Amino acid sequence: MAGGVSYPEVAGAITPTGPWRVASRAGGFLFVAGMRGIDPATGAVVAGDLARVRQAFANMRHIAESQGASLDTTVRLVVYVTDMKRHRPLVNQVQAEFWTDPARFPPRSILQVEALNQDDIVEVEGTFLLP
Amino acid sequence: MAGGVSYPEVAGAITPTGPWRVASRAGGFLFVAGMRGIDPATGAVVAGDLARVRQAFANMRHIAESQGASLDTTVRLVVYVTDMKRHRPLVNQVQAEFWTDPARFPPRSILQVEALNQDDIVEVEGTFLLP
Amino acid sequence: MAGGVSYPEVAGAITPTGPWRVASRAGGFLFVAGMRGIDPATGAVVAGDLARVRQAFANMRHIAESQGASLDTTVRLVVYVTDMKRHRPLVNQVQAEFWTDPARFPPRSILQVEALNQDDIVEVEGTFLLP
Repeated sequence: MAGGVSYPEVAGAITPTGPWRVASRAGGFLFVAGMRGIDPATGAVVAGDLARVRQAFANMRHIAESQGASLDTTVRLVVYVTDMKRHRPLVNQVQAEFWTDPARFPPRSILQVEALNQDDIVEVEGTFLLP
Repeated sequence: MAGGVSYPEVAGAITPTGPWRVASRAGGFLFVAGMRGIDPATGAVVAGDLARVRQAFANMRHIAESQGASLDTTVRLVVYVTDMKRHRPLVNQVQAEFWTDPARFPPRSILQVEALNQDDIVEVEGTFLLP
Repeated sequence: MAGGVSYPEVAGAITPTGPWRVASRAGGFLFVAGMRGIDPATGAVVAGDLARVRQAFANMRHIAESQGASLDTTVRLVVYVTDMKRHRPLVNQVQAEFWTDPARFPPRSILQVEALNQDDIVEVEGTFLLP
């Protein structure tokens, strides 16, 4: 529907376990659900803090790229961690791996929340501009 | 003002008790303030966890519908709870009641924060596409 | 690039210390990174809770105004504090100072998180409509 909201099916994305979908397309933007470090192949969180953070960002990137967006069209990131001092350096490391051009780093907010689903350690919520 | 931001008055919505309004309209989107389970008729939070969650979503839906949007044009939800294990199932139940078509579930992030205003248990922040 | 995302350099804004930039412009909106009460001249957080909150909002406003937006074109605020009962009144006071027209108060969500970077007390994340 022209001008409407669509909720794409994304092959290779994680499978929602509740009443939500992985993304919406609306008004030229792509809104991706908060992504955690779940292996889409198994549905289980991956082992290791750094690998977990990397998987969360990879899950988000996969959804963005499936819709024609990319990390270079990120308009906002909100990153939720459960231990700022421990996880923020890992998030920074992963972002520096994923974004190769510092001139295209996106605006970010990073917050230490009390808990995430499944007692996870990181969740990243990205918004992208569609081409 | 064409192309500008407007902050609609919404009859039947909760009454803000601080320097904020319940929503803005801008660029084809409707941004609704974080809604809690306040009864608009009394200004008091409703009793019972499930009823409280349902009221929060009802308050959000009322504002969306007042502007010509609907739950079917939700582009993003961020849900803040104060006890993930206790409240996430209630949020899931209420969303399943409110969204009747699973193909139109929106992307969601759900976070356990330390506290909400008035020591409340849930707050839902929705963004919608306007028709 | 017409229609693309740009990440403006903003003279007088704080200097990011990680893989992020202070704002993005996309689809007619300005997305500003979460701002804390850092003095852009020194890079240090300012002393005093009220002054800290005021500085956070001033940092956000500076970025908005540098891009032709203003507080009057705020579409959404998310405010993260580490002590709701202590900081929410300060946030309310500062917003009442900064927004002189109550008819143009923006929708807001306010959350108490467990921690912010540098053990800070407040972070404000604003989205604006560009002219």
